[in-house]
Amino acid sequence: MGTDLRSVVETVGSLSTSDHKSVVSITLFVTLLCACIVIGHLLEESRWINESITALIIGLGTGVVILLLSGGKNTHLFVFSEDLFFIYLLPPIIFNAGFQVKKKQFFRNFATIMMFGAIGTLVSFTIISLGAIAIFDEMDLGLEIGDYLAIGAIFAATDSVCTLQVLCQDETPLLYSLVFGEGVVNDATSVVLFNAIQDFDLTRINSTIALQLIGNFIYLFISSTVLGVFLGLLSAYIIKKLYFGRHSTDREVAIMMLMAYLSYMSAELFYLSGILTVFFCGIVMSHYTWHNVTQNSRVTTKHTFATMSFVAETFIFLYVGIDTLDIEKWRVVSDSPRTSVEVSAILLGLILVGRAAFVFPLSFLSNFNKSPREKIDFKQQITIWWAGLMRGAVSMALAYNQFTRAGHTQLRGNAIMITSTITVVLFSTVVCGLITKPLVRFLMPSSKELNRSLSSEPVTPKSFSVPLLASQDSDSELFNGTGQASGANGDQVPAVHPIGLRMLLTTPTRTVHYYWRKFDDAFMRPVFGGRGFVPYVPGSPTEQSLHQWPAEEVKD
Amino acid sequence: MGTDLRSVVETVGSLSTSDHKSVVSITLFVTLLCACIVIGHLLEESRWINESITALIIGLGTGVVILLLSGGKNTHLFVFSEDLFFIYLLPPIIFNAGFQVKKKQFFRNFATIMMFGAIGTLVSFTIISLGAIAIFDEMDLGLEIGDYLAIGAIFAATDSVCTLQVLCQDETPLLYSLVFGEGVVNDATSVVLFNAIQDFDLTRINSTIALQLIGNFIYLFISSTVLGVFLGLLSAYIIKKLYFGRHSTDREVAIMMLMAYLSYMSAELFYLSGILTVFFCGIVMSHYTWHNVTQNSRVTTKHTFATMSFVAETFIFLYVGIDTLDIEKWRVVSDSPRTSVEVSAILLGLILVGRAAFVFPLSFLSNFNKSPREKIDFKQQITIWWAGLMRGAVSMALAYNQFTRAGHTQLRGNAIMITSTITVVLFSTVVCGLITKPLVRFLMPSSKELNRSLSSEPVTPKSFSVPLLASQDSDSELFNGTGQASGANGDQVPAVHPIGLRMLLTTPTRTVHYYWRKFDDAFMRPVFGGRGFVPYVPGSPTEQSLHQWPAEEVKD
Repeated sequence: MGTDLRSVVETVGSLSTSDHKSVVSITLFVTLLCACIVIGHLLEESRWINESITALIIGLGTGVVILLLSGGKNTHLFVFSEDLFFIYLLPPIIFNAGFQVKKKQFFRNFATIMMFGAIGTLVSFTIISLGAIAIFDEMDLGLEIGDYLAIGAIFAATDSVCTLQVLCQDETPLLYSLVFGEGVVNDATSVVLFNAIQDFDLTRINSTIALQLIGNFIYLFISSTVLGVFLGLLSAYIIKKLYFGRHSTDREVAIMMLMAYLSYMSAELFYLSGILTVFFCGIVMSHYTWHNVTQNSRVTTKHTFATMSFVAETFIFLYVGIDTLDIEKWRVVSDSPRTSVEVSAILLGLILVGRAAFVFPLSFLSNFNKSPREKIDFKQQITIWWAGLMRGAVSMALAYNQFTRAGHTQLRGNAIMITSTITVVLFSTVVCGLITKPLVRFLMPSSKELNRSLSSEPVTPKSFSVPLLASQDSDSELFNGTGQASGANGDQVPAVHPIGLRMLLTTPTRTVHYYWRKFDDAFMRPVFGGRGFVPYVPGSPTEQSLHQWPAEEVKD
Repeated sequence: MGTDLRSVVETVGSLSTSDHKSVVSITLFVTLLCACIVIGHLLEESRWINESITALIIGLGTGVVILLLSGGKNTHLFVFSEDLFFIYLLPPIIFNAGFQVKKKQFFRNFATIMMFGAIGTLVSFTIISLGAIAIFDEMDLGLEIGDYLAIGAIFAATDSVCTLQVLCQDETPLLYSLVFGEGVVNDATSVVLFNAIQDFDLTRINSTIALQLIGNFIYLFISSTVLGVFLGLLSAYIIKKLYFGRHSTDREVAIMMLMAYLSYMSAELFYLSGILTVFFCGIVMSHYTWHNVTQNSRVTTKHTFATMSFVAETFIFLYVGIDTLDIEKWRVVSDSPRTSVEVSAILLGLILVGRAAFVFPLSFLSNFNKSPREKIDFKQQITIWWAGLMRGAVSMALAYNQFTRAGHTQLRGNAIMITSTITVVLFSTVVCGLITKPLVRFLMPSSKELNRSLSSEPVTPKSFSVPLLASQDSDSELFNGTGQASGANGDQVPAVHPIGLRMLLTTPTRTVHYYWRKFDDAFMRPVFGGRGFVPYVPGSPTEQSLHQWPAEEVKD
């Protein structure tokens, strides 16, 4: 403990050096972030470009400028620090994902999401790893078995931000929650996989080690989730009991942020998966804690979390863009450009295959015994497949973790893997990203129109879409199937709506959901707060702004 | 530029190391911060304790625990990094100060505030420096002329947070704005002074160098202010022109935060005073930018800035508390404990004298030619004097900057100065801090009662206090003297209220204020937005929550 803390604090001390140089770099990054936001806003209406691509291109441009200013000599300019990423940038993104997720949709499709996110990622991982072993071993890159498994984990990590920016949560709730949920579970799974691989001596694989690996994986999954739920509930309990808002809104906001971050860091402290922990902490906080604070704190936390996530995401793409122009790693591979291109192409191919190998079979499985309304149709399957083709910051971070030591890429094999990762990330983000908007709009034509009208007129989407959907469904399907539309007051419905025999017979998840609701109302909410146990405010974090808008507008 | 950037980025990369240790330290700090918030909340009603003292004591306790765990051997545990402080912690505190300041009061008392903040700090600096030269030179501590001047700047930096927590902005607006304004200007002045001293070769002081020093000081002051105003106006213009809120609240919030931070960093980039820049940027942003964003963004930014400032402040005191228990620096002075105590006592004495030497004379000057209502009475003078006795994080940071190289304190003189600074900070914060609440309540008895009733009933303080104050004043004094009460709609008053002859004759500042308002309405607001040029919302950042509360409550 003592020695730990000692160096620990030296680390904190080294968070910044007394140089003027850190000032230059921070100023540069903040300026570029502002530029990304402004330009991203101006390109909002664009048919092709999205925020990530904007940030990547600005980053690339900056990299070129720096390269030119340094006369092409200055190698190793920007180092992608995977710890900067995992300690500061990833937590707000994942927490916000949990905080803003539509819980009802998420848990209704929980089985499918877990299937895609966990099993799918494992399938993808296996195919990419096996493919890498089969093909790269021929090419004599000097990689070991651990490297191949790491490659599988690295390229199993998807980045579905691009697609989510185009999909409309209110229009295609099932699809949205599948893509979104899969993205989060996939992040967690691939990071957990990656860590599980690093912890084991993989030179001698046998069935015991394989079983241990699986056991380790399951242990990480469950204990991380439990820790996140526990800390979320703790924050709800503390805020409900102490009622900070009586004295200060700022204390409430501060404790919510700090507890959220604490959940991530404490998971890392116990060598668990911070991503899973902070995600479930976010869900619990939005279900209980968020309802226990004052109105102003609700607005503040909701938007602050979203803003931090947004800035972190932009920062990552900017960083990746600038880092791409680091000469050193390109110089190592410059004597064998063909190999590098080949490796990138093979990886892209493996990604395509690895993803197709689970999306279509698992969709088929998932469609089994479902009502036509809940089935994933072929166009949606293609969208899901496409949504997971992009590779992003998680892949970059894992690749740097595996293939660099202190930012340097001396070994030829390592250098090739780093440059290939960059190529895959750039290619998939820019090229696939550019095609995403047109493709999704081609596959779901109505999505775009409604999406547009909603985002430009955020005043009455709820009141507009609820009756619309209600009229086209039967009574019980309104309750079960259109939760996304009645989500705002859906939590109150079960109390007045009798549970039908038909419902019990359909799928078990619904029954679980029903009993959970009863348990929640009877035991959890009285202790931890939540909607209905504090002064009533319509809307959850996700719906809040929609509900609030009209009232605010009128008030003004 | 090239080389600069190179190391720059390595600095960014070194923001975190891949060790598990940084995880331990961050978890520890976040946990302690949560503890500070909870305990601070529980002690809210306490007569003696305040937030800073809570954080200091928790920090000290943690330091003791670490010391015991390491068996008393582990020296140099926690290093106070002045760059962590100046780059990450100070900017949000100062920006929030500018953002939440009651502009009307601040600018009405601008002359007095500048007198106290700038001239007063210079007087204090001179007395402490001269005293240090006279006394410490006898004691043979091995300090040079630059060190003595630095000591003057270090101990001229006050920390008035304690007092501000007790004073009530609505009850004693003049006193509050003086203490608050002086605190900010004092911070800026002492840091600017400190930097100005470090930039010069002080072994040979002559009149040319002294003049250069003064010129440098004035240049820093003016250019920093101009930069802050410029960036604030730029943010207002961008947000007004582009209207981010159309698409996304998060973009608005993000750009406001980033521009605020950019103002600080760009000032540091040009070797100006970031504190002054970010303070004026905060003022401009609350006057223009804040009114150009959506309602949700207003609530979010207001509370987020306040929360960040609050967390940063708590963190600093926690850090100082833990750092106090670093053995190494105590070991160096352990052979001469008497000297260390003597130095601390002398410094405390110099602080008392140095402050008294300008508060009372300058108050007398300021009372000249003022109406009785605007005079600073003797009790208020004592409060102002007392408010500036505490020394805090700025002193610590400057002392570390001057007397440590890379965190080590090898030279005996340096070690003594560091330990004495810690002693002075601890003593003044804890002892003076404990007395502050009782003292202020003794000096201004009504303050406490109203303050209490206001903070526990935040629903209608404005509507309650406005008629109260209005009835006891003449008509013109309502307009001029009780700006704090009518502040919410005061900006609209001049348009309907004729400017009286009497007002023109009283003090020039008012006339300046009147013409500024005319200029603002005619030229500035149409370009940069601001209240009245966007959909009307009652209240400025400071009053917003009060006004919003009832409406929100009713709505729910």
